[in-house]
Amino acid sequence: MRVKGKHYRTVWMEEGTVKLIDQRILPFEFKILSLDTPEKVAEAIRDMTIRGAGAIGAAAGFGMALAALQAPDENFDEALNKAAQILRAARPTAQNPFYAIDRILRGTAMEQTPGHKRQRAQNIAQAIADEDASGCERIGEIGLSVMGESTNVLTHCNAGWLAFADWGSALSPIYQAKRKGRKVFVYAAETRPRSQGAKLTSWELGEEGIPHKLIPDTATGSLMRQGLVDLVIVGADRVAANGDVANKIGTYTLAVLAKTHSIPFYVAVPTTTIDMNCASGADIPIEERNEDEVLWVTGRADDGRTTRVRIAPDETHAINWAFDVTPASYITGLITERGRIDANVEAIRTLSRDETTAVKG
Amino acid sequence: MRVKGKHYRTVWMEEGTVKLIDQRILPFEFKILSLDTPEKVAEAIRDMTIRGAGAIGAAAGFGMALAALQAPDENFDEALNKAAQILRAARPTAQNPFYAIDRILRGTAMEQTPGHKRQRAQNIAQAIADEDASGCERIGEIGLSVMGESTNVLTHCNAGWLAFADWGSALSPIYQAKRKGRKVFVYAAETRPRSQGAKLTSWELGEEGIPHKLIPDTATGSLMRQGLVDLVIVGADRVAANGDVANKIGTYTLAVLAKTHSIPFYVAVPTTTIDMNCASGADIPIEERNEDEVLWVTGRADDGRTTRVRIAPDETHAINWAFDVTPASYITGLITERGRIDANVEAIRTLSRDETTAVKG
Repeated sequence: MRVKGKHYRTVWMEEGTVKLIDQRILPFEFKILSLDTPEKVAEAIRDMTIRGAGAIGAAAGFGMALAALQAPDENFDEALNKAAQILRAARPTAQNPFYAIDRILRGTAMEQTPGHKRQRAQNIAQAIADEDASGCERIGEIGLSVMGESTNVLTHCNAGWLAFADWGSALSPIYQAKRKGRKVFVYAAETRPRSQGAKLTSWELGEEGIPHKLIPDTATGSLMRQGLVDLVIVGADRVAANGDVANKIGTYTLAVLAKTHSIPFYVAVPTTTIDMNCASGADIPIEERNEDEVLWVTGRADDGRTTRVRIAPDETHAINWAFDVTPASYITGLITERGRIDANVEAIRTLSRDETTAVKG
Repeated sequence: MRVKGKHYRTVWMEEGTVKLIDQRILPFEFKILSLDTPEKVAEAIRDMTIRGAGAIGAAAGFGMALAALQAPDENFDEALNKAAQILRAARPTAQNPFYAIDRILRGTAMEQTPGHKRQRAQNIAQAIADEDASGCERIGEIGLSVMGESTNVLTHCNAGWLAFADWGSALSPIYQAKRKGRKVFVYAAETRPRSQGAKLTSWELGEEGIPHKLIPDTATGSLMRQGLVDLVIVGADRVAANGDVANKIGTYTLAVLAKTHSIPFYVAVPTTTIDMNCASGADIPIEERNEDEVLWVTGRADDGRTTRVRIAPDETHAINWAFDVTPASYITGLITERGRIDANVEAIRTLSRDETTAVKG
């Protein structure tokens, strides 16, 4: 998508390094980092230099490709498996990195020589990013038809292009609407503690010229009660086989509010986010992050410098669950690159069966 | 209540000035301001140097007392009415300032000479603050019996002693529980945009030795879904005659979540917060504050200085409703200094009839 009119992806490979947009310093600085080891890629995923389901999936894929490039002939598999382990451990909740890592391990295992394995790893990593981008573009087209006449959309966190290789999931239908000249307005919920709605979604929407307003997470209930929201669309970090969804903390609250106000609540995800090995949301591990993310807020001070400020007494402790689980019963539907489906085990199983035959190793 | 072991009220009159704790710089600085004109008191209410239903009610009362002290004999009533107008305009949603201003206007109207009017204004202002403190203490006792065996309480914003002359409304039962040796644990919701849960409630609870944790507003749904909340108690800025409640933005969301999870949802208020002239929540004007409160966060930087940081792009605009309305149907009960009552027109009317005879002008 566009940054000051120029097209970017969130993460890509170039001259043997992984390049990515530093999402910790947006919206105040736009900077591309070059990471030259799989460890550095894992660290970037852990510290949220890159974040978002599809983006960290693509990053993990490129991290594996980097590991393959650097693995010595004599113990190639060992080095690749070690990188897989490190990348896997970076964040426990999101499904896409696991999908990417497994696909590259499966693919390289089918090759005989280190040289062929290296090439295969590059190809798969690139395919994962490309499929993520094209899948998200398709999610936008399908999502736009799901939106129907809806104009006012509430979204949470950032499931825009910064969260994927390109296009985004929840915001992709918005971008499609804009391209087709359809009227659309986005309420971006701030999404404490890391305020991705303020820092990333507002920035993305601004760069793409989409009319929007930022709202505190506390205002979402009142917003819906006043009839100002036609539709809620969010992304997901993992979808269980029964349709339960793990997504950024606060998603569940929006789902409850949407149900109370009879507002459609959609989850937009590429099928790579679906984990058939998780029977239900109860099986999804929820990452607990450092309490400092709640106790401190980072932004740009009046002197122009990126600064963190503490908002609570020194003695105060905080809870910082990164995600919550929204039961399938709260979800109007899933918007995937293969169509809109209901959030239930039968619909998801059908999709998954298709996938098994469609996905190339 | 206690600050470093010493007892304070939030606002009081001393040597012809209004003294109050500066709540904009808590928890990092504890400072008492002296305000020597009613205009300065109104400004302190407007800019939230003092905030909270009972505290701004008491402050408005003392502001009127100050106006009476300073009003010249020759046009006393005119000067007092002008002060009333200025203090009334400071914040539109909270009921307690209106109650205090009206009570002083009624009381002074019954006196013949400026000297008697001055004395009457002082007496009423002091009575309002004292009644607020003793009423809140009583709310604590009644609230404690309402709590029953509940241990884990979720609260929103700050309805502690900083929001009243003393004791608080929602937090008063917590302080009573502590004094009686009862086990109690408080989850303080941050309450963006001004984060009073982080800055004020956490500080109050810490000073009083109450075990607590801060949670982002986004985590309240997950907290309830995990069964970690026995009871929600919040305060209110105005209660309509039908039991609808205007309180800090985000209250309605908690009420919806509490209902979904069958968790009791109580609103603790002195009867001075009830406005019989408002038939329902739809008649309560909702203050819209400057968007900068959402776009910027103020806290203490690593260098120890109070600093504000911007968390959104320069081009982004935000919605900043200070309050929302929770329909009476979501409220398990009101905890007042005269007992626990249902949030409906009959129960409130009974209370109000008692009040009309009980209140002295």
